[in-house]
Amino acid sequence: MPSAGTHMILEMYECPAELLNDRALVERALREATAASGCTLINQQTHRFEPQGVTGLALLAESHISIHTWPEANYAAADVFTCGHKADPEKACGYLVRAFEAGQHTLTKLERGEWIAAMKPELFEEYPEPRLEQVVEAEAAT
Amino acid sequence: MPSAGTHMILEMYECPAELLNDRALVERALREATAASGCTLINQQTHRFEPQGVTGLALLAESHISIHTWPEANYAAADVFTCGHKADPEKACGYLVRAFEAGQHTLTKLERGEWIAAMKPELFEEYPEPRLEQVVEAEAAT
Repeated sequence: MPSAGTHMILEMYECPAELLNDRALVERALREATAASGCTLINQQTHRFEPQGVTGLALLAESHISIHTWPEANYAAADVFTCGHKADPEKACGYLVRAFEAGQHTLTKLERGEWIAAMKPELFEEYPEPRLEQVVEAEAAT
Repeated sequence: MPSAGTHMILEMYECPAELLNDRALVERALREATAASGCTLINQQTHRFEPQGVTGLALLAESHISIHTWPEANYAAADVFTCGHKADPEKACGYLVRAFEAGQHTLTKLERGEWIAAMKPELFEEYPEPRLEQVVEAEAAT
């Protein structure tokens, strides 16, 4: 079935708390997960909460990755949404599971925009290459 | 059932293309949807693609909101992820449907982190109020 994009919902359990509280690790994980999926990072933002927990959001040419951590519960919630046939969001999820050393995880795959993609599949068959200045913007942000 | 948070998956169809291509509207929609859900905006980022389309990501004290638009298909994909008992992510979704004048929409509700929340519900019963400096940071970003 054609779709506008694929949205992976990733639950990571039994992660070491110190990894989940490491803002620099979350930033690196967003970059590396983006690369693992064959996507292009345009920008990212992270925030460390008090007394604990980190949120990271990556804006991709192909959509987004989010990570939210609860170190006190050894739990992190992530999602990876990509469009375009070249992207492989499952590889991003595999990277995140390894980066946060999750003892258990679940992965749910949602196809997005199926109604419009079924009616107008030609709109989603091609995906433009990112412009050079977007890539430069991504490098400056990392 | 206790959960770590609620994740709403919102598909918006039959939206006017000019709304979907309006980066300022996407920024305003992120702010207003955050307020509608009773959440606190910490930061946001948006990007306008060429030849069309906008992505916006809002980092909330309570998790995140994303918006990705395809003006050529009159389609936008959004998600609203919130934790804490005070947040109402469905109100954020209702706001987005109105803001983008969606002719059709679907809404799917996912509960996140149910496995850990079932084992340790006390970890998710309380949610800290945002610190004052976080709120100031959000206002500076808007």
